Amino acid sequence: MPSDGTGKAGLFVSLEGIDGSGKSTQARRLAEALRAQGRDPVLTREPGGAPGAEDIRRLLVEGDPDRWSPETEILLFTAARRDHLERTIRPALAAGRDVITDRFADSTRVYQGATRGDLRGLVDDVHALVIGIEPDLTLILDMDPEAALTRGLARRSGEDRFEEFGLPFQHKLRDGFRALAEKAPDRCVLIDAGRDADAIAADIAAAVAKHLV
Amino acid sequence: MPSDGTGKAGLFVSLEGIDGSGKSTQARRLAEALRAQGRDPVLTREPGGAPGAEDIRRLLVEGDPDRWSPETEILLFTAARRDHLERTIRPALAAGRDVITDRFADSTRVYQGATRGDLRGLVDDVHALVIGIEPDLTLILDMDPEAALTRGLARRSGEDRFEEFGLPFQHKLRDGFRALAEKAPDRCVLIDAGRDADAIAADIAAAVAKHLV
Repeated sequence: MPSDGTGKAGLFVSLEGIDGSGKSTQARRLAEALRAQGRDPVLTREPGGAPGAEDIRRLLVEGDPDRWSPETEILLFTAARRDHLERTIRPALAAGRDVITDRFADSTRVYQGATRGDLRGLVDDVHALVIGIEPDLTLILDMDPEAALTRGLARRSGEDRFEEFGLPFQHKLRDGFRALAEKAPDRCVLIDAGRDADAIAADIAAAVAKHLV
Repeated sequence: MPSDGTGKAGLFVSLEGIDGSGKSTQARRLAEALRAQGRDPVLTREPGGAPGAEDIRRLLVEGDPDRWSPETEILLFTAARRDHLERTIRPALAAGRDVITDRFADSTRVYQGATRGDLRGLVDDVHALVIGIEPDLTLILDMDPEAALTRGLARRSGEDRFEEFGLPFQHKLRDGFRALAEKAPDRCVLIDAGRDADAIAADIAAAVAKHLV
């Protein structure tokens, strides 16, 4: 979040990428790294990150792939995001804490906005109405969808609704995230997530360090 | 729904009003009256009216009054409405069936748009983006909030979240519904719901009859 001049606002970082790209692991490692520097980050995720938003999450990640139309999904994801923003993200940033979120608005832009019909305009319009802000830094974990899909389904979390859309869908997602990174180079950093976790964590630490000077 | 020229589209009717004003009873009676005329109405309600929308309903009507901010509520109600529209209302109207719904978009305009901060603009913007249509006829059941509130709480349905906002809130709602009726006289008919059920049903039947000629 841009400083308000007091120097007290925390850094707002999102991790994005296809299912199985290692976002959760890297979000946790980034939180540990910031703690080791004496900072007090809040580690959170979407959909979810607040009690009400977690209730909405269950509607989104469970059930049949055709449970919701893309338009209904956009509204539900944005409702969860608004709750997350009000109850978790804004209070933490205002208290000077960093926020690391496993997914934010870019996931909606790519999943709902670019994969099943051209609904990117709707995603952007709803975002402008009720969300408004972007992270200070977005780390896009980029990797081969075949390898990522195997990893994602292997988890068997019961939250497989999006994985079940299949491999062509994951390829579209990857392309969507790469396109976002190209269009917003000031905010987004593309990270090669096909390597070992230490190498990825080192790149992420370097990208975050530039925002903490 | 305006006829498409084939004369086959059904009539879309909503019933609106504060909690305890008798909407559900009158919606049922209207459905019976239309069936007696050989028509085949779909009787439905909001939030809900489709399996996914009913899941969203539970998030909205249960829990503490401050469970959601008004902005999050607007998104959740609109998500449920979009699902209701896609899966129940549009298919029924397209099949030539009438649709009678216990609440529609006017409830969001009044509950979220006019009672807790001035969010009417947001309600209208989100409605325009993903809903778009209005009923052919809206019956606004108008009555004294004291009497209606007693009736509503006496039901003890476990769906008391909005009733628990209290009496001043119900007065604001009544004023909001009356203002809507004044602003959209072509679509809305104000019904005096402080009388016995037969008298109310007769007024409703007369209002509906005008749209069936």
